[in-house]
Amino acid sequence: MEESSSSDRLYLDDLHVGQRFTSATHTIDEAQIKAFAAQFDPQPFHTDEKAAERTFFNGLAASGWHTAAITMRLNVESGPPLAGGVVGAGAELSWPMPTRPGDILHVESEVVEITPSRSRADRGTIVLLSRTMNQRGEIVQILKARLVVPRRAAS
Amino acid sequence: MEESSSSDRLYLDDLHVGQRFTSATHTIDEAQIKAFAAQFDPQPFHTDEKAAERTFFNGLAASGWHTAAITMRLNVESGPPLAGGVVGAGAELSWPMPTRPGDILHVESEVVEITPSRSRADRGTIVLLSRTMNQRGEIVQILKARLVVPRRAAS
Repeated sequence: MEESSSSDRLYLDDLHVGQRFTSATHTIDEAQIKAFAAQFDPQPFHTDEKAAERTFFNGLAASGWHTAAITMRLNVESGPPLAGGVVGAGAELSWPMPTRPGDILHVESEVVEITPSRSRADRGTIVLLSRTMNQRGEIVQILKARLVVPRRAAS
Repeated sequence: MEESSSSDRLYLDDLHVGQRFTSATHTIDEAQIKAFAAQFDPQPFHTDEKAAERTFFNGLAASGWHTAAITMRLNVESGPPLAGGVVGAGAELSWPMPTRPGDILHVESEVVEITPSRSRADRGTIVLLSRTMNQRGEIVQILKARLVVPRRAAS
């Protein structure tokens, strides 16, 4: 279980099941939570502290889609350095607990599946399991993303 | 298969499998695609037309997380009027084709599962299948979201 710190781009052929990556951190604040919510998820528990206290969330919480978007940013900039970029075909998500103002998030990712394409010799897919964690080590999002990854050209 | 146009909030008890909802539309443009990407998914196929031509996407495409966020906005504002709001516990997503600049998106949703909570008499979960479609009727995103929905108070 090594950490990757290489700046080299990784092809499908370079990956192995169990390979792990730890991202940088992102601190989320109330202004970010409200700005995202105003644009994409305008519900009181994401836009207004007072109103949020009387909801399911018992206080202001980030939209789950905001947590997902931050996770993407962290994975793109400091996650697995995949050749071709982080290109998702699909994903499974869950949000075991809310992301709150002041949370310092980072992402711990692991390659859990590698599947060369049967029809396209130049690519394959991997399943990357990404746990987004706060500063207390609590998991705020579990993401299993199916990513398209190029293969090295046959020599 | 009725369409809902009621402004009344719907509780778990008001929903049935097969119930459908059609959202309003949202037109996505290049500026929105680039702004979202700059903040959350800074990869060339989402930020730069020229560079995007030489990638997997063959041209500028919205981040899948941007499509997901727009889908959320449409469902919050003009999807199922759920009591308690649209509160997701988890989701499965796929992006069968890219969202492109100029696409006019809407969301067609259907209740596919209703599960009263065993432990909490005041709530349950539903699975809402939401297909995000463009102006040509092509599906750009399939989302199966597990949502928490309150029950009507026992009388």
